[in-house]
Amino acid sequence: MTTISMIEAAEERIAGQARLTPLLSSPFLDAIAGRRVFVKPECLQHTGSFKFRGAWSAVSALEPEVRARGVIAFSSGNHAQGVALAARMHGISSVIVMPADAPKLKIDNTRAFGAEVVLYDRENEDRDEIGARLAAARGLTLIRPFDEPEVIAGQGTVGLEIAEQARAEGIEKADVIVCCGGGGLTAGVALALEARAPGLTVRPAEPEGFDDTARSLKSGRIERNPRLGGSLCDAIVTPQPGNITFPINARLCGQGLVVSDEEALEAMVLAYNRLKIVVEPGGAVALAAALFRRDEIEGDSVIAVCSGGNVDPQVFSAALARHSDV
Amino acid sequence: MTTISMIEAAEERIAGQARLTPLLSSPFLDAIAGRRVFVKPECLQHTGSFKFRGAWSAVSALEPEVRARGVIAFSSGNHAQGVALAARMHGISSVIVMPADAPKLKIDNTRAFGAEVVLYDRENEDRDEIGARLAAARGLTLIRPFDEPEVIAGQGTVGLEIAEQARAEGIEKADVIVCCGGGGLTAGVALALEARAPGLTVRPAEPEGFDDTARSLKSGRIERNPRLGGSLCDAIVTPQPGNITFPINARLCGQGLVVSDEEALEAMVLAYNRLKIVVEPGGAVALAAALFRRDEIEGDSVIAVCSGGNVDPQVFSAALARHSDV
Repeated sequence: MTTISMIEAAEERIAGQARLTPLLSSPFLDAIAGRRVFVKPECLQHTGSFKFRGAWSAVSALEPEVRARGVIAFSSGNHAQGVALAARMHGISSVIVMPADAPKLKIDNTRAFGAEVVLYDRENEDRDEIGARLAAARGLTLIRPFDEPEVIAGQGTVGLEIAEQARAEGIEKADVIVCCGGGGLTAGVALALEARAPGLTVRPAEPEGFDDTARSLKSGRIERNPRLGGSLCDAIVTPQPGNITFPINARLCGQGLVVSDEEALEAMVLAYNRLKIVVEPGGAVALAAALFRRDEIEGDSVIAVCSGGNVDPQVFSAALARHSDV
Repeated sequence: MTTISMIEAAEERIAGQARLTPLLSSPFLDAIAGRRVFVKPECLQHTGSFKFRGAWSAVSALEPEVRARGVIAFSSGNHAQGVALAARMHGISSVIVMPADAPKLKIDNTRAFGAEVVLYDRENEDRDEIGARLAAARGLTLIRPFDEPEVIAGQGTVGLEIAEQARAEGIEKADVIVCCGGGGLTAGVALALEARAPGLTVRPAEPEGFDDTARSLKSGRIERNPRLGGSLCDAIVTPQPGNITFPINARLCGQGLVVSDEEALEAMVLAYNRLKIVVEPGGAVALAAALFRRDEIEGDSVIAVCSGGNVDPQVFSAALARHSDV
């Protein structure tokens, strides 16, 4: 179980390796949201998403002789890149099991970071089974994308930074909206804020049709998504909340927020126009919720984590064309 | 004449107002450049460009009773937004004289920041004359875009940050490539580095056909551009180097670097792909030079300032489409 001490230890191991991302804002976004909006742009993190933090944390926490045999991960893309780069920076090999329909950019980048990429069919194959089999055959350590205490600890370093940056902005009480797939970032940030900034409440954000965490928080037990693919927000689509992450999130998070794909695209364009950052659809759902769910949010400030920026140029240009008036 | 003391004083006045921008990097950019590439993303600054720094510095340096009468500026866009926001944050009015062919986004944003916008014809009217007339008629203080010691001092705060960030990265000797129009950012950064990091040498970067500073540095006297408009890099097109900025740059800068519009567009796309930041064409010439002029650059590291990110979505999408293979 991840604790604040593990998050603090991850912060020490990650110092000088992960990028301390700034807190961005724009009066234009404040006007839309009806309150001050602060954005934590984890798209500016190494490999273009917060996933590098969890990957570095998990790889660096391994015993040296275990680490030396290499690592394996399964991921729709951002976790893959994080693990590949963290492995390369540690001088070890990595095998990444990726869905065959992941954005080409993510597959190419993962290979470019030195990983061996194994593709699978998201609808008909079980990535857990594939990962476990390869890990056993080659002596690799499996780095799970979210249900892994050291990964959650690494993602928690985002929360440590938010706690400090919010204090510098004079924010004592606010919702912190986090893009939520399996819930690792959400859980890590929630644990960090519980310890360092208890006036800040994490709210998971998800795309419509894939709101497993929002429904699970409401019912009090793990609920599954009816579909497993087909969202623009591919990066944060998982079948259900994690067994390790969900109890943390159920204890610490406020209600989930749900936005449409179209709202996520509009938030991407606003992030382009007003913050000059590149955000992928799944990485924009928290900002979309901050901007377009004003009645479901409390307080005069809101913080949104833009979790990643690995978006194919065609998708990005299409979003710019569809929302040319924002 | 701007001194390091004026830059340090500007830094004190600007603390908590301007954003401390991070230093970004990507192994993919290193591979293209053949050396480590560090990017200072001033596109993430308030109003989307470094110009906010100089504007804040100049407005905040005015005597209160002079400042209260308001300010005026003439600008192709980024200086306009910087002055408009700095004025609004000081609770004073601003008049901005802008070319009629400036990007619509820049005109709209300048108005949204509360400025009164006066448009002029870039080919047939003299913006200096228009600015001086309006200033005299209304008692406004003219904030020049670059030939103004307090503006140069404000831009110099970029150099103070680079000096510190380079030290943290272990960089003692490197070229620091700066997008150069009138030369205010170039001069400010050069003065700051002279005092704080003398191993770092500023190299101005300009678009082909508008390389007045590169030619002036070579000949030792102020040279004019043959044309005054028509570049994609509109934000950094000026008729000639400034009377105040040029002597500073002639004393402190290395040779100028010149890139094509197409190279600037490719650098924009690489900044999108690899750094997840939005850079305008004129703001990308320094990065283009860092990436595509490897034989004209010294050392194993290079630092490029991406000076602004205010680019119309159509231009951005067209660049993504033209360079879809990078």
